Amino acid sequence: MDDLARLVAGEAIRQVKARYFYGLDHKDWDLWRREVWAADGELHVPEHRTEPYRGIDAIIAWVSAATADQVSIHHGHMPMIEFDGADAARVIWAMEDRLYRTREHPLEGGWTELHGMGHYRERYERRPEGWRLVSSQLTRLRVDMRMTR
Amino acid sequence: MDDLARLVAGEAIRQVKARYFYGLDHKDWDLWRREVWAADGELHVPEHRTEPYRGIDAIIAWVSAATADQVSIHHGHMPMIEFDGADAARVIWAMEDRLYRTREHPLEGGWTELHGMGHYRERYERRPEGWRLVSSQLTRLRVDMRMTR
Amino acid sequence: MDDLARLVAGEAIRQVKARYFYGLDHKDWDLWRREVWAADGELHVPEHRTEPYRGIDAIIAWVSAATADQVSIHHGHMPMIEFDGADAARVIWAMEDRLYRTREHPLEGGWTELHGMGHYRERYERRPEGWRLVSSQLTRLRVDMRMTR
Repeated sequence: MDDLARLVAGEAIRQVKARYFYGLDHKDWDLWRREVWAADGELHVPEHRTEPYRGIDAIIAWVSAATADQVSIHHGHMPMIEFDGADAARVIWAMEDRLYRTREHPLEGGWTELHGMGHYRERYERRPEGWRLVSSQLTRLRVDMRMTR
Repeated sequence: MDDLARLVAGEAIRQVKARYFYGLDHKDWDLWRREVWAADGELHVPEHRTEPYRGIDAIIAWVSAATADQVSIHHGHMPMIEFDGADAARVIWAMEDRLYRTREHPLEGGWTELHGMGHYRERYERRPEGWRLVSSQLTRLRVDMRMTR
Repeated sequence: MDDLARLVAGEAIRQVKARYFYGLDHKDWDLWRREVWAADGELHVPEHRTEPYRGIDAIIAWVSAATADQVSIHHGHMPMIEFDGADAARVIWAMEDRLYRTREHPLEGGWTELHGMGHYRERYERRPEGWRLVSSQLTRLRVDMRMTR
């Protein structure tokens, strides 16, 4: 991989992850299908569930249920990018999220406001349609939850 | 636009927006004039005013009044960049801001601390003097305001 | 410096700073030695101490003591990069940090939670081993501290 190819790939990966965040906070799951996730992608949030969600349908089924009746803010920062050949990369992003739910939210959590900070550990691959997110694991260093009136 | 030109333009736009934030939080309006805004730029904050501020003089007149007697923190994240030819781009940035005012702040708001999170939807153009911010619309997904002692 | 060289250097600097944050919040001081700091680096936090810490040993001695018994979150944003020739750059990053300590933390501070926002003013140089952080000064525009139960 020469310098230019590496820069192009790094920028493509940043664009994919930017659409990940935009789609998530706007509940634009079509954007996730078209421009973010590989169809066989995996999403793993160990603090939520031991097993990853496998495949874009399972990912969207969970995330769309979890984000129903919720305003969410997810921000990503300072990716550490390491390439495995020309068509794959491992990336770690720092992240912060804030979730605002009503008391009537369908998922039981015992909170209406959550503030988390941690990291995504991800793998991207170049597929025929472009760079796509193939696996994502989210862990948080700190989570604060509270129940508002 | 070839790969290298696109990367160069994307980096130039990031540098412009970095100076937008630095100038805003340091009240360095000369930096805004010299390196950030096109002279005919427009700033639109619909939650504040229906009409955009048009032109750098009107923009600075409002922003410098609004930020008087205020400490502000504005952060931008994860730009989604789409080029319209070689000399123009549409960019969406996630953002977070925190504003700290005294009770004596000249603009009436009913708060001394504001915490907002949302997006800038912007257009940049390559002008003779370099890439410049031509229009910016700010909307927030969440705003919390409070009055401290 | 041609366009490609500038982009390559800018990305290398971003990767160094990403490892700065990752190393700091994971207390991975080996990562700091290997991939972040020049051996003769200087860290200056005027609100903490008038004099900079000089040299990687002094930096790690202080930071590892200050972060003992602490969960920390440091995020960096929107670098303003200016090159001084091909082998040196001055960079300003916006930053936000959150520190969570126990009451038993060895350093006296009078707080268990700190939330700060400000800027790093830094210098990077290309050394034989790659781009490295040579000096870093941290100032904050706003700091909130509180003592929790």
